[in-house]
Amino acid sequence: MEIIIAEHAGFCFGVKRAIRLAEESAKEAEGNVYTEGPLIHNPQEVRRLEALGVKVLNGNTLKGGDTIIIRSHGIPPKRERELLSKGIKIVDATCPYVKAVHEAVQKLSKEGYFVVIVGEKNHPEVIGTLGYLEEVGGVGTVVESKEDLKDVLGKEKVGVVAQTTQNEQFFKEVVGEIALWCKELKVINTICNATSERQEDVYKLAGNVDVMIIVGGKNSGNTRRLYEISKALNPKSYHVETAEELQKEWFEGVKRVGITAGASTPDWIIQEVYQRIKHLCS
Amino acid sequence: MEIIIAEHAGFCFGVKRAIRLAEESAKEAEGNVYTEGPLIHNPQEVRRLEALGVKVLNGNTLKGGDTIIIRSHGIPPKRERELLSKGIKIVDATCPYVKAVHEAVQKLSKEGYFVVIVGEKNHPEVIGTLGYLEEVGGVGTVVESKEDLKDVLGKEKVGVVAQTTQNEQFFKEVVGEIALWCKELKVINTICNATSERQEDVYKLAGNVDVMIIVGGKNSGNTRRLYEISKALNPKSYHVETAEELQKEWFEGVKRVGITAGASTPDWIIQEVYQRIKHLCS
Repeated sequence: MEIIIAEHAGFCFGVKRAIRLAEESAKEAEGNVYTEGPLIHNPQEVRRLEALGVKVLNGNTLKGGDTIIIRSHGIPPKRERELLSKGIKIVDATCPYVKAVHEAVQKLSKEGYFVVIVGEKNHPEVIGTLGYLEEVGGVGTVVESKEDLKDVLGKEKVGVVAQTTQNEQFFKEVVGEIALWCKELKVINTICNATSERQEDVYKLAGNVDVMIIVGGKNSGNTRRLYEISKALNPKSYHVETAEELQKEWFEGVKRVGITAGASTPDWIIQEVYQRIKHLCS
Repeated sequence: MEIIIAEHAGFCFGVKRAIRLAEESAKEAEGNVYTEGPLIHNPQEVRRLEALGVKVLNGNTLKGGDTIIIRSHGIPPKRERELLSKGIKIVDATCPYVKAVHEAVQKLSKEGYFVVIVGEKNHPEVIGTLGYLEEVGGVGTVVESKEDLKDVLGKEKVGVVAQTTQNEQFFKEVVGEIALWCKELKVINTICNATSERQEDVYKLAGNVDVMIIVGGKNSGNTRRLYEISKALNPKSYHVETAEELQKEWFEGVKRVGITAGASTPDWIIQEVYQRIKHLCS
């Protein structure tokens, strides 16, 4: 049996950077080191970091001198000021590609556009981006499904950006729809390269294997989207968080297995999945 | 049998205005009155205008004092200056919505965008618009089919407009594709309202009738697009230029017939088609 791991599976630049910054902070900081919410959407990796001293802030009382690591997703600027005013140290691990989205919404807003963020309403990245839009007195909305497009009807000048890990196909459709309604549309495509590459890998791979395994946190939006793309191309697609979830019967009579993983899936989990599949099929 | 004429069938504002200006010129002018190419893409209406003195320039030698009517499609500004320098009088019947496209491409070009015109490469409107782009030293291309998108690859800032009578579905797809490739996309939707309304009528009507008749010049781009939309929804769709082309067998056993017509189809031809269908089915 052949097992193919997609070329761009797993950690992206922004996630690698955030983990490096978190590890360094844990070593160097004098107070506690926290992240607000898990540093990345992967429970296993978060546990590994906890063991190194990077705690997830969860009702703990922050004290002056503690360190907060801003996750790769970013946070609203208002929250950042709030933390600084309490004497909290900040390590900014916001992904540079996410910073580019913050700049894009502010630019569009200053140019008079009603801003559309194509993304998940409750995703921390989108919440952070909305904070940056608010900062310049901008108006806009989040489009998560085609139904949300009703909020864009009647707007004459519309500026569009995307959550960095957005589904390209959905983004494309939303942009096309809005182009037909409004008089002037400006799009700054903020889907990051790593996202495009991971999605393209799935388009190439999923139809050419018998079974497709997508590895990543069940709470990871970008992993879920890889799974959705894969499922549409190959009904034998499975989304697992760890190697333990793999089931022997998925691989019966199977000749080719494809593996990919979300941006927040560490290599060591991908490797465990790979080894486990090899073992199950031997 | 029921015969339904689509609400927005036939002449649009720009065509009505061009015909009015041509009729007035023919009455008032002292020299010859010409149009370069047929005033509208409808041979029958062009013959009617010829009888009133509006000739199609066709190898005739223009003399100082003659009048040229610029068609609703517009012409490149270079050609306009050339005519004026020969002492030709100009009656500008360029559709105001087409003038808006000229302004849009110049604006986009001045803002540093590579300009994409979604339209037909050989259509006089597109040729005129390209002339206006050239006037400001702009660079761009015409996208007539998805294959032409190769000319847009690698462009970082892309500005998109449409031929006023473009197919909305195609425009939407092109805009979506480009949004994924480039860094910044600005779209000025220049498809005119009359075009949108006519196409929406077909989307509503074609699936709800047994036979759909699309009336208009075989050389009329916007009529052909109505036919293509209709054909996809109802295989019993026919494109005719005149009532004589209607065939009795198309209507055998048919309960509901829909009629629509392109922007360049005069009412009198739509009425002839309507009467002929009534007669064939009586």
